[in-house]
Amino acid sequence: MSVMSLDETRDFLDREFPQMHDGGRFYHLEAVGPLTARMRLDHHDRFLRPGGTVSGPAMMALADFALYAAILANIGPVALAVTTSLSFNFLRRPGTDGLIATCKLMKLGRRLAVGEVRITTRGSEDLVCQATGTYSMPPR
Amino acid sequence: MSVMSLDETRDFLDREFPQMHDGGRFYHLEAVGPLTARMRLDHHDRFLRPGGTVSGPAMMALADFALYAAILANIGPVALAVTTSLSFNFLRRPGTDGLIATCKLMKLGRRLAVGEVRITTRGSEDLVCQATGTYSMPPR
Amino acid sequence: MSVMSLDETRDFLDREFPQMHDGGRFYHLEAVGPLTARMRLDHHDRFLRPGGTVSGPAMMALADFALYAAILANIGPVALAVTTSLSFNFLRRPGTDGLIATCKLMKLGRRLAVGEVRITTRGSEDLVCQATGTYSMPPR
Amino acid sequence: MSVMSLDETRDFLDREFPQMHDGGRFYHLEAVGPLTARMRLDHHDRFLRPGGTVSGPAMMALADFALYAAILANIGPVALAVTTSLSFNFLRRPGTDGLIATCKLMKLGRRLAVGEVRITTRGSEDLVCQATGTYSMPPR
Repeated sequence: MSVMSLDETRDFLDREFPQMHDGGRFYHLEAVGPLTARMRLDHHDRFLRPGGTVSGPAMMALADFALYAAILANIGPVALAVTTSLSFNFLRRPGTDGLIATCKLMKLGRRLAVGEVRITTRGSEDLVCQATGTYSMPPR
Repeated sequence: MSVMSLDETRDFLDREFPQMHDGGRFYHLEAVGPLTARMRLDHHDRFLRPGGTVSGPAMMALADFALYAAILANIGPVALAVTTSLSFNFLRRPGTDGLIATCKLMKLGRRLAVGEVRITTRGSEDLVCQATGTYSMPPR
Repeated sequence: MSVMSLDETRDFLDREFPQMHDGGRFYHLEAVGPLTARMRLDHHDRFLRPGGTVSGPAMMALADFALYAAILANIGPVALAVTTSLSFNFLRRPGTDGLIATCKLMKLGRRLAVGEVRITTRGSEDLVCQATGTYSMPPR
Repeated sequence: MSVMSLDETRDFLDREFPQMHDGGRFYHLEAVGPLTARMRLDHHDRFLRPGGTVSGPAMMALADFALYAAILANIGPVALAVTTSLSFNFLRRPGTDGLIATCKLMKLGRRLAVGEVRITTRGSEDLVCQATGTYSMPPR
């Protein structure tokens, strides 16, 4: 089990990151667990690019939110981690059924957390994007 | 001199990437040159995060757009390059005076272009974010 | 099944990359499969650093060799892929029982291959290093 | 001026990282300055790869050493920084006249240092490799 439940993590994100839902509620935290989190990005025309593909920045935001949620759920609502690096490999064009970001923390240390995110089109197992992120942990 | 002028590059981006200006015109291409481009992101509350900082995704979009513009200006309006990887180091909290992305292509090959972007707060020389991106070139 | 068998891949690497075994035979390809490969680095004092840790460059070489082997086994001995980028997260200090690199190609396209490597100390499941690599594929 | 002089930094590296000179003295620290360092890798057949190119791991070691030297020279010989991530773009085949790594720290914070390295063939300005590295700073 993670330190915070799914509902607790959702409430914290809604309160602290209302801008996640600017213009509509598209990013949905679906699950949290020990060192893991899963987040969904609903399809919406605002994320579209020519050729029917989802924009890079929408996917990058999804990866960052999902990693952030995984850290939060596993350290509790004590203070804020800061993104220090993010690295993306764009592998395939995403479809238009929404995206699923599955993330796993590879390290959750006192000073540094490192996690990986894999993004697939909803209903498919083909990787659309793989990302890793590093977060500086707040002094605890 | 680059292959396309600043005005030609701007026109092409406006036509092909209208979503760059979704909700307002905040991303401005300021200069293009041999293997270089500079782009500005105007300050707007929609890019803000708690603590007065600019959102990561807004900066990541800025880096991707700026690199894309540098490639475009230097190969001409023939076809579209595809982002294959992006890598970001977030170094300092940005201020609220807008951001400047200065980018330089380190390689512009037949199959691959690789560039670096340095983002500063407008009017300051302190690096806020450094990024590198890799683009798969269209067959020419 | 991969295109080349384990023995065929080993023979090709020994012939084409004899420098892998400079000063002794420490890098061992243990398995190849569809989009996968596993390579072992035996412990040796030459890879040690103060504090009993394995050197970063020895791990970086291991990751690059393992990804290369996975590509080779899955495209056949036709020509050489070229490393275009490598990215490493160093997560924990490795032990002194040798290292295992498990790699999986996330994309094996006509022009680009992208893979992930996870390095653990032999006999442990704790991640020591996670890496991703991008390879430009030879025209086929 | 940096905190340590060139000679002091060299002496410290020789004492603490004798493995840098395993099998011969090929890595030479040429200069240190405020947030900067320059290191040379002499040509030697042991670094060669088929086609006359320098091995990736030799370049990766050069980048890591150079960044480490820049940090050391700028914080003094108090304790050891730990590499947490390294990221490489390989841009062109290196020549056989030795390599020069020029590095610049983009951030030297209390907890994290981030730097960039550009590697060229000696006597040329063409970039062979560009790298960024992140180091966790020892508590001071």
